[in-house]
Amino acid sequence: MKEKEFISVIKNILNSKYIGDDCAYLKDLCIVVSQDSLVEDVHFKKNLIAPFQLGYKSVMVNISDIAASGGKPLYLTVSLSLPENIDADFIKEFYSGCKKACGDNIEIIGGDITGSDKIYISVCAIGKTHERNISSRSGALTGQKVIVSGVHGSSAAGLRLLPNGCEKLVKAHLEPKAQVEFAANISKNVEGKYAMMDTSDGLMDALSTIANESGVLLDIDFKKIPYDKEIEQFDDWKDLILYGGEDYQIVATVPQDYPKGIEIGTVKEGLGVKLNGKIYTKEEVEKRIYNHFGVKS
Amino acid sequence: MKEKEFISVIKNILNSKYIGDDCAYLKDLCIVVSQDSLVEDVHFKKNLIAPFQLGYKSVMVNISDIAASGGKPLYLTVSLSLPENIDADFIKEFYSGCKKACGDNIEIIGGDITGSDKIYISVCAIGKTHERNISSRSGALTGQKVIVSGVHGSSAAGLRLLPNGCEKLVKAHLEPKAQVEFAANISKNVEGKYAMMDTSDGLMDALSTIANESGVLLDIDFKKIPYDKEIEQFDDWKDLILYGGEDYQIVATVPQDYPKGIEIGTVKEGLGVKLNGKIYTKEEVEKRIYNHFGVKS
Repeated sequence: MKEKEFISVIKNILNSKYIGDDCAYLKDLCIVVSQDSLVEDVHFKKNLIAPFQLGYKSVMVNISDIAASGGKPLYLTVSLSLPENIDADFIKEFYSGCKKACGDNIEIIGGDITGSDKIYISVCAIGKTHERNISSRSGALTGQKVIVSGVHGSSAAGLRLLPNGCEKLVKAHLEPKAQVEFAANISKNVEGKYAMMDTSDGLMDALSTIANESGVLLDIDFKKIPYDKEIEQFDDWKDLILYGGEDYQIVATVPQDYPKGIEIGTVKEGLGVKLNGKIYTKEEVEKRIYNHFGVKS
Repeated sequence: MKEKEFISVIKNILNSKYIGDDCAYLKDLCIVVSQDSLVEDVHFKKNLIAPFQLGYKSVMVNISDIAASGGKPLYLTVSLSLPENIDADFIKEFYSGCKKACGDNIEIIGGDITGSDKIYISVCAIGKTHERNISSRSGALTGQKVIVSGVHGSSAAGLRLLPNGCEKLVKAHLEPKAQVEFAANISKNVEGKYAMMDTSDGLMDALSTIANESGVLLDIDFKKIPYDKEIEQFDDWKDLILYGGEDYQIVATVPQDYPKGIEIGTVKEGLGVKLNGKIYTKEEVEKRIYNHFGVKS
């Protein structure tokens, strides 16, 4: 998949300002909208994830996107395509997982079920923007600090340990938790421009995207990035922290006096991500993501 | 696929009033939302539909759902999963088709692209409900008349004639047109309860759904149902009109003095669809759809 090439073709044809972001902010309707898909044998292996966890994760991915936009996640539609041999038990488990991820404040309101050769899940999520300051990848301002909501690397470590292994890490991979409250607190309290993303594609990917779309340098102190000591069992644990995906934490650039989050760096003039003295360009980050974890699609 | 069994399992787990309809009406946000998917070898064969038409149809199906709810279709997200061997030309054609179906008033605002074995398309559509009287399948009232927006049977006839054959019928199948204006006129002008659906799964399916969900009898005069004479080339042309899907016309029950549409019958006390004197129950209609056109999934 040449996803980036395709997205630029699509942008050209549709000529829409919305294409390319995780969420579309529809100001006239006061909502944010996202859609994300999970495909069997591309995003997951059926024998390595239980139907409950698959439902849970499909929904959580989208809740995280809405939360990271600063919107309040409210409604989801779930489209499910299934092979003939799937039974009602699978459906029951899958939707129970969806429901658990929704919690008390988010509702699944529709979708469809169709046949297919493999399992295919596409979820659309809608959030409310009322009384929220919606974020942008291009909103980082020099002088702001860079904060994260929690540990990185656990999900990628958990993936390596599947189906068994350190329970905490495996759970971080199979049942990640969207940082809804953390993100809401930022969008309700920060005034003016700021940048926010979830780290679904890895911390460096998010940092690099914010840096390049905002035209700034993010000066990051690696030692300040929180992680779980358990991941040190892998020789490349530092890469898991930086390039491993699916932790679904929040990274944001906020004013210095914003009281929450774990500070990992500062927004400065320049371009790219500075880590331990070295500046990583967009191309270098993409190459490293490719080398460590294969092509994201 | 045991779609109906699965939907009842899902309804039980999610316990949501929205599940089961084509569209969810979110009153707090003043929007309607629908999601529909098209899967290669289930809903289409790659060699029988051009990428342009596939894009066109994926979008039109969802625009039709929103229109049939009475909402004003405004925004779409498109999720596309593609095998490795698909190139940028396919993407270009596909999205050009999407854009044509959108016309000037509807915009594609997001979605995603992922890898897969087969082509899988899932579209989510959002419409505005401001100054509209949103329809319901259960809104038919005795004394109302049953109207349709246009001819039925052409799309099913066109499908049989693929890849070549009567151009008009093939086009009706490959490039159906959602009846946005027809439906808008109803939702803007009819006061009080009424029922409206599109005929994506066939005219009888829509009539039977409205009849059973409203608890009424729809007394239909077959002779009044408009169709294209060209379909008489098939022995079972009457079945194409009644059970053939994908015409994407509108069927609605409206007050007798509503001035538009083609009247095909009347809403009466009772239950089911009465056609040429015989009453068809829900089960009979489902059995006939199955016998004529296989299981819909």
